[in-house]
Amino acid sequence: MTTQNITKIALVGFGTVGSSVAKLLHTLNLPNLRLTHIYNRGIAGKRGSAEAAFVPADAIWTEDIEDLLTSDADVIVELMGGLDPAGPWIERALASGKSVVTANKQLIAYQGPALLAKAAATNVHLLHGAAVAGGVPVIPGITQGLGGDQITRISGILNGTCNFILSKMEAGARYSEVLAEAQSLGYAESDPTADVGGFDARAKLCILARIGMHVELDPEQVATQTIALVDAVDFAYAKELGCTIRQVSRVQLSSTSPDSMYARVAPMLVPRESPIAWSHGTQNMVVTTGRFGGDVVFSGHGAGGEATAVAVLSDLLAVSQNSRPVAFPVTPRPVTGDSVAPHYLRFIVDDKPGIVSAIAGALSKVGANIDSIIQRPGYPKNRLAFVVTTEPCLTSTIAEAVESMGKMDCMLEPPLSLQILVIDDKDEPTA
Amino acid sequence: MTTQNITKIALVGFGTVGSSVAKLLHTLNLPNLRLTHIYNRGIAGKRGSAEAAFVPADAIWTEDIEDLLTSDADVIVELMGGLDPAGPWIERALASGKSVVTANKQLIAYQGPALLAKAAATNVHLLHGAAVAGGVPVIPGITQGLGGDQITRISGILNGTCNFILSKMEAGARYSEVLAEAQSLGYAESDPTADVGGFDARAKLCILARIGMHVELDPEQVATQTIALVDAVDFAYAKELGCTIRQVSRVQLSSTSPDSMYARVAPMLVPRESPIAWSHGTQNMVVTTGRFGGDVVFSGHGAGGEATAVAVLSDLLAVSQNSRPVAFPVTPRPVTGDSVAPHYLRFIVDDKPGIVSAIAGALSKVGANIDSIIQRPGYPKNRLAFVVTTEPCLTSTIAEAVESMGKMDCMLEPPLSLQILVIDDKDEPTA
Ligand SMILES: NC(=O)c1ccc[n+]([C@@H]2O[C@H](COP(=O)([O-])OP(=O)(O)OC[C@H]3O[C@@H](n4cnc5c(N)ncnc54)[C@H](OP(=O)(O)O)[C@@H]3O)[C@@H](O)[C@H]2O)c1
Ligand SMILES: NC(=O)c1ccc[n+]([C@@H]2O[C@H](COP(=O)([O-])OP(=O)(O)OC[C@H]3O[C@@H](n4cnc5c(N)ncnc54)[C@H](OP(=O)(O)O)[C@@H]3O)[C@@H](O)[C@H]2O)c1
Repeated sequence: MTTQNITKIALVGFGTVGSSVAKLLHTLNLPNLRLTHIYNRGIAGKRGSAEAAFVPADAIWTEDIEDLLTSDADVIVELMGGLDPAGPWIERALASGKSVVTANKQLIAYQGPALLAKAAATNVHLLHGAAVAGGVPVIPGITQGLGGDQITRISGILNGTCNFILSKMEAGARYSEVLAEAQSLGYAESDPTADVGGFDARAKLCILARIGMHVELDPEQVATQTIALVDAVDFAYAKELGCTIRQVSRVQLSSTSPDSMYARVAPMLVPRESPIAWSHGTQNMVVTTGRFGGDVVFSGHGAGGEATAVAVLSDLLAVSQNSRPVAFPVTPRPVTGDSVAPHYLRFIVDDKPGIVSAIAGALSKVGANIDSIIQRPGYPKNRLAFVVTTEPCLTSTIAEAVESMGKMDCMLEPPLSLQILVIDDKDEPTA
Repeated sequence: MTTQNITKIALVGFGTVGSSVAKLLHTLNLPNLRLTHIYNRGIAGKRGSAEAAFVPADAIWTEDIEDLLTSDADVIVELMGGLDPAGPWIERALASGKSVVTANKQLIAYQGPALLAKAAATNVHLLHGAAVAGGVPVIPGITQGLGGDQITRISGILNGTCNFILSKMEAGARYSEVLAEAQSLGYAESDPTADVGGFDARAKLCILARIGMHVELDPEQVATQTIALVDAVDFAYAKELGCTIRQVSRVQLSSTSPDSMYARVAPMLVPRESPIAWSHGTQNMVVTTGRFGGDVVFSGHGAGGEATAVAVLSDLLAVSQNSRPVAFPVTPRPVTGDSVAPHYLRFIVDDKPGIVSAIAGALSKVGANIDSIIQRPGYPKNRLAFVVTTEPCLTSTIAEAVESMGKMDCMLEPPLSLQILVIDDKDEPTA
C-alpha cells in the first residue's frame, strides 16, 4: 500500500454519480485520495449546488477539459456518459499517462478492448467497476474470484428501471403508471427507450461476457425485446405457470450455432424458484454458472449516485495502490438471439370458433408442439386474453408462427412471445 | 499480463481441495501455471489415487516438506489445514520469497495480519480467497469492490454443513438423522463440533470483519452457540413467527459497548423475507451492509473440492499476473456477543398451573418484556413445548433470566434462547 503518494483525482461530470463521488471522497476521507479538478458544462450552476459543499476549497472547477487533460491529475474519473466526447477524452488521458476510472457502460461495451490496450501501452489503469450493477461488485468479483472457473452462462437483472417497473407490475400496477412513477422518482429517463428497450442492459451483458467468458461480442448484434408490450394480463398468466416476468439478460454458448454465443436481453418468464425471480425494485442481480463452482449470485442495489460512487471509489483505491486486475485474452465471437426454449404466447382476440385450432395449425406448420393452453376466466369474449405455451423450440421458429398468426382477423393485438427460463440443475443453487 | 513467465506451483496437501486444484489446473490449462511439486504424508497412496492422473508426469511427489521449501517453486499452495505445521511452513515459504495461496481459514483468522506482514516484507503474495465461502468470490468482491464503502454490518451463512442440517430440519428431518446423512455425504466430519459449534464459521467471520470492516477480532472472543440444541419443534414455532432458523454469523458495531464490535455465530430466527433465509442446502451466503451502497448479497456453493479449487486457481492467476489486492490498515477491536434483540425462548415442561406466570416473573425481574406467548396444539401435557418471544432486550439479560428459569422443577430441558434477526430498512434489499 502506498502511504506517501497522493492520488490526484479529476472529475469529468458533476451529475448524480459525479457529485456522489465528491461526497464519498469527503465523507470517507480515504487515505491518499484527493479531489483536485472538476469539469462540467455550466460550471457556475454546479459550483453553486448543495453537493459542491463536499468539494475541497482548493479544487479547480472548469468548463475547459484541457484544464484537466493537461493538469497534474493522476486519474480522470469520467462520469459524463455517452460515446463522444467521453471516448476521445479518455483516449487522450490514457495516452498522456493518466489512469481512468469510468462508469460508462456504453463506452466500455463498444470500445473496452481498444481502450484497455491504450492503457496497457502507457502502463496506466483503466477501471470500470461501476459500469455493471453499480455498487454490486460483480466486475471485481468475477475478475479476481472466478478466473479459475470456466463460466458457461451469465444471467442477470441488469437494468434497475425495468426491474422496478416489472416488479411493480407483478404487484398489480399498470405499465404506463409505473413508468411515470419511475420517471418522477428519477429512476427512468424522460425517453425510457435505452432502459425498457434493453439497450442499457445489453451493453452491460457484453461487458460481463468479456470479463467472465473472455469473449468479445458486438452489442449491436445482441437481440433485444422491449418490456413495453408486457401487460398486466401476462403477470396473471405467468403466475398460473409458477413464474414471474423479468427483463433477463443472458449469455451462454449457443446450442444451435457452433462457435457463436447466445445472447439476449428480453422480458422472460422466470420460475419463482429461480434466484432471478427474487429481485425486486431497482435491485440488480447477476448469476454466473461455472463448470466447477456452479452458480454464484451477486445482488444488491445496482444504481443510484451513492451506490455507484462506491464502485468508483473502490476503483480509485485500486488505482492509488497500483492494484491491477487479472487480465485474460478475449476472442471475438458471433452472436445469436435464437435458442431452443419453451415459449409463452399470449393472444388478445375477438373470440370466434376455430381460433385455437388455427393457432395450433400455425404452430404445427412450423413444427412447434403445444405444451399447454390456458384461459383464465373473466375476460370479455370480444377481448379475450389467453395463452399457449410450447415445448422447447427455436425462438426463430416461434417468431415465424407468430408472424403468420398475427395476420389472423381475430387478433386484436400482435401476439406476444416470450422465452420461458428453465431451471436446470446447474441453474438452481438454492431451491 | 505476464505471457512469458511460468509460475511454478507446489501443492502442500493432496486431499479434497488439493486434488481438485490439480484437476482444475489440468483441465483449464491456464496460461503460465504449472504444477511442479506435491507434498503429502503417505505419498504412495496419494500417487496411486485416481486424482493423481491430473498431475503432470514430471511433477515431484514427496513426503519431505524441505523438497518444496527449498525448491524453485514460485507459489506454495497450502491445502492441508490446521495451525501447525501449516503456519510455520507458510512463514518459511514467505520468508524465502515464495508466494502463498491457502484455504486455511483458522490460520488466516488467527495469524492473518502477521503473515501478511511477512509477505509484504519479502514482497510476495499471500492470498486466501478460498478461506471464506469457498468458490463464492466474497473476499475478492469485498476487497476490490467495496473498499469505497463503509461496511457497517456483515451477516452470513458461513458453514455449509450447518446450513445443510438446518435446511433439512426445516423440511422436517431430525437433527441426529440429518447429521448422520451429512457425515455419510462427506459434508460433516466424524467430530462435527467445529461446524455445529460455530468454530469454523467464527474464523470466517473474523476474516470478513478484517477485510470488510478493517477491524481485527480475536476469534476466541467471538460468542458461539451450538446448533445441536435446535429441535424440530423450534422450526414449527419459528414458522408460526414467519421465520426459519439458520446458523447466522454476524458482525457489526456494538450498540451496547462503545468501540467494541458485536460478533456472534449462533442459530437465529431469520424472517422468511430476509435473503439469509433463502440459503438452502450447503449454500453459503454473505450479506454486507454498506453506509452508501446498502446491502450486497453474495451466494453460491461455498464448499466442495472443485468450488474451493476455483478460488485457489483464481488466486494463482492473481499471483502469476502480480495482481495485488487493495489493502487497508486494520485496528484491533474488543468483541461482545451481547446485543439488544428480540429473543425466542423455547421451553419443554411438565405442564403445571403457574408455569407461565413464573416465566413471566423471571423475565420481568430482569426487566425483559414479553412480546408473545405461543403454544401450538398437539404436545402432551407432560412434555409440553411452548414459546415466549421478548421485546428487544440484551442477550445477557435474557441469559440471566433463562438461567433462573432453568432451575424451575417443571423444566424437562434447559430452555433454548435464540436471537431473532430483525429486518431493518438497510437489511432488506429485496422484499
Ligand atoms: N446514475 C446511476 O445510478 C448510474 C449507475 C451506473 C452507471 N452510471 C453511469 O455513470 C455516468 C454518469 O451518470 P449520472 O447518472 O451521474 O448522469 P448525470 O446525472 O446526467 O450526470 C452527467 C454529468 O455530466 C455532464 N455532462 C453530460 N454531457 C456533457 C457534455 N457533453 N459536456 C459537459 N458536461 C456534460 C452533465 O451536465 P448537465 O448537468 O449540464 O447535464 C452532468 O453533470 C453515465 O455513464 C451512467 O451510465 C450511472
Ligand atoms: N473441503 C472444502 O470444501 C473446503 C472449503 C474451504 C476451505 N477448505 C480448507 O482447505 C483445506 C484443505 O481441506 P480439504 O477438505 O482438502 O481437507 P482434506 O481432504 O483432509 O485434505 C488435507 C490433506 O492434507 C494432508 N495432511 C493433513 N495434515 C497433514 C500433515 N500434518 N502432514 C502431511 N499431510 C497432511 C491430508 O493427508 P491424509 O489424506 O493422509 O489425511 C490430506 O491429503 C483446509 O484448510 C480446509 O479448511 C476446505
